[in-house]
Amino acid sequence: MRDGRFALSVDLGGTNLRVAAIDEEGKLLELLTLPTISEKGRQDVIDRMCDGILSLRDRWSESYYLVGISLGLPGILNLKTGIWVESPNLPGWSNCPIRDLVFERLKQPFHLENDANLAALGEKWMGSGKNEENLIFITQGTGVGGGIVLNGHIWHGTEGMAAELGHVNVYPDGRRCKCGSRGCLEEYASASAVVKGAWEQLNSDKASPALRKLADSGQELTAALVYRLAEEGDASALEVFRQMGIALGIAIATFINILDIRLFVLGGGAVDAWGAFEKSMFEEVARRSYVYRNDPRQILKSRLGNQAGIFGGAYLAFQHAP
Amino acid sequence: MRDGRFALSVDLGGTNLRVAAIDEEGKLLELLTLPTISEKGRQDVIDRMCDGILSLRDRWSESYYLVGISLGLPGILNLKTGIWVESPNLPGWSNCPIRDLVFERLKQPFHLENDANLAALGEKWMGSGKNEENLIFITQGTGVGGGIVLNGHIWHGTEGMAAELGHVNVYPDGRRCKCGSRGCLEEYASASAVVKGAWEQLNSDKASPALRKLADSGQELTAALVYRLAEEGDASALEVFRQMGIALGIAIATFINILDIRLFVLGGGAVDAWGAFEKSMFEEVARRSYVYRNDPRQILKSRLGNQAGIFGGAYLAFQHAP
Repeated sequence: MRDGRFALSVDLGGTNLRVAAIDEEGKLLELLTLPTISEKGRQDVIDRMCDGILSLRDRWSESYYLVGISLGLPGILNLKTGIWVESPNLPGWSNCPIRDLVFERLKQPFHLENDANLAALGEKWMGSGKNEENLIFITQGTGVGGGIVLNGHIWHGTEGMAAELGHVNVYPDGRRCKCGSRGCLEEYASASAVVKGAWEQLNSDKASPALRKLADSGQELTAALVYRLAEEGDASALEVFRQMGIALGIAIATFINILDIRLFVLGGGAVDAWGAFEKSMFEEVARRSYVYRNDPRQILKSRLGNQAGIFGGAYLAFQHAP
Repeated sequence: MRDGRFALSVDLGGTNLRVAAIDEEGKLLELLTLPTISEKGRQDVIDRMCDGILSLRDRWSESYYLVGISLGLPGILNLKTGIWVESPNLPGWSNCPIRDLVFERLKQPFHLENDANLAALGEKWMGSGKNEENLIFITQGTGVGGGIVLNGHIWHGTEGMAAELGHVNVYPDGRRCKCGSRGCLEEYASASAVVKGAWEQLNSDKASPALRKLADSGQELTAALVYRLAEEGDASALEVFRQMGIALGIAIATFINILDIRLFVLGGGAVDAWGAFEKSMFEEVARRSYVYRNDPRQILKSRLGNQAGIFGGAYLAFQHAP
């Protein structure tokens, strides 16, 4: 008689490679974290990842039943073919047949899924979205991505391309986006957007003396440095984050007006600046959505942080357990 | 032995009240159309509506099984309480307990549903969305509304307020909307928006001589008159519809980027001007959504026109048949 069931959840990121064994109460039984070192080549990374998966599998299978394995990846996946179409953080992996490569080592089926979709599902299972069947997760990192959970499951859309939330239009004539459009959410609510916003001020007459001093110091201007200025009360830096809040508010109001979702969860590094953008974000959502004004929805920070995807992968395996 | 099953579908509009008997192949067995005459008071309208429902029920029940009854209403409904919260086209009906009032006469359960949601479902069943499980229906009348079908069913959202598509933000600093926001889709893609767009030109120096002549004629400026000018090739009128196409394109690109829906169906009176706005609409969707550029989705005109909701109501009853 075994103690219960467990899932294996793998997150293959540009920096780290993580393999977790998680039981069905959401208890993290074991977490293995390795550096990805993608320069060593695909096969090396896949070998080390699969070694990790197999070792956790064998160890935890002694006392638990395995329900399934999930592999979360950043970028764009074709879920039908198992091709990793775009791998922004792992240069050289684009268009690789990731499902085949991993299957060759594991010899057992596994779920392949976008990491932001898994993070959305993880927040629904064990994070800020417990007891919510519908939520939208927005991740603010270098870019802006997201995942949508409807009726308790990841919403993929017709071709698996749903939740490109970074490219929701906010300002039709706004900043140029690499996607070909202008004024996408990503251009106002990501870490790169913070740097762009600071440079817009520097290139006008509006920059504060402190921001100008920082730019002149020779240090590379980063979102973290601008945030530090904001924490010190610098007007220019605060304005950059106020703009982030407005853009998020416009987008979230649109999500509410379309889908009537009750919960939004924000994750990713830029959420550390929550205190600097929340006021303008909540004000803007209220201004733009009478649905929200009549019955406010929740906008919360991620509770699971960078483990949201790991938990989401495990939950995906439990949802599809044989 | 009976010939098959049928549903009763009722559409209570500001002008007409329609009751239809429809079989499960989507054959319209009988359609009863009466003037609503809301001035005669609620009870009179409800009595005539229920008389119609009961007479069709009794007649068609002789040879078919009845699977259910649906009642479609414009405006905002609270599906939990059965209260008709806002009835824009039937003044004086707001906040009336429509479910109770109708149940008192019918003495049998029935589906209560927003008419745009039903139109979306009707297009999915028997219109432009046949064989599609996911679609977004946008109705362009005096205002802009819509309905969303996901996995074959109406998407209500958490509180039944989904698909307020007229209030999706298009221009954050654009025209003031009665909802309290600015630049909502409705302000650019409805019949009223056409009139507003024409007045914007008249109030600037941009209006063509023909538009100015029309405005000076003493006739009330209507969307239909502006459209007639557009058909004659008038530059001002064409610009108004070009702007409509751009606004629709921005909104549809956002819907694609969020939900990855493959089919959009446009209905309502303003769709008659399709030829005047389709070019800028398709161009704008392509500009704003790389998902669309990689794999174009369909944007089609409604096939069922003002009968979409009637068919949707019948399908809703079949979907929930005991």
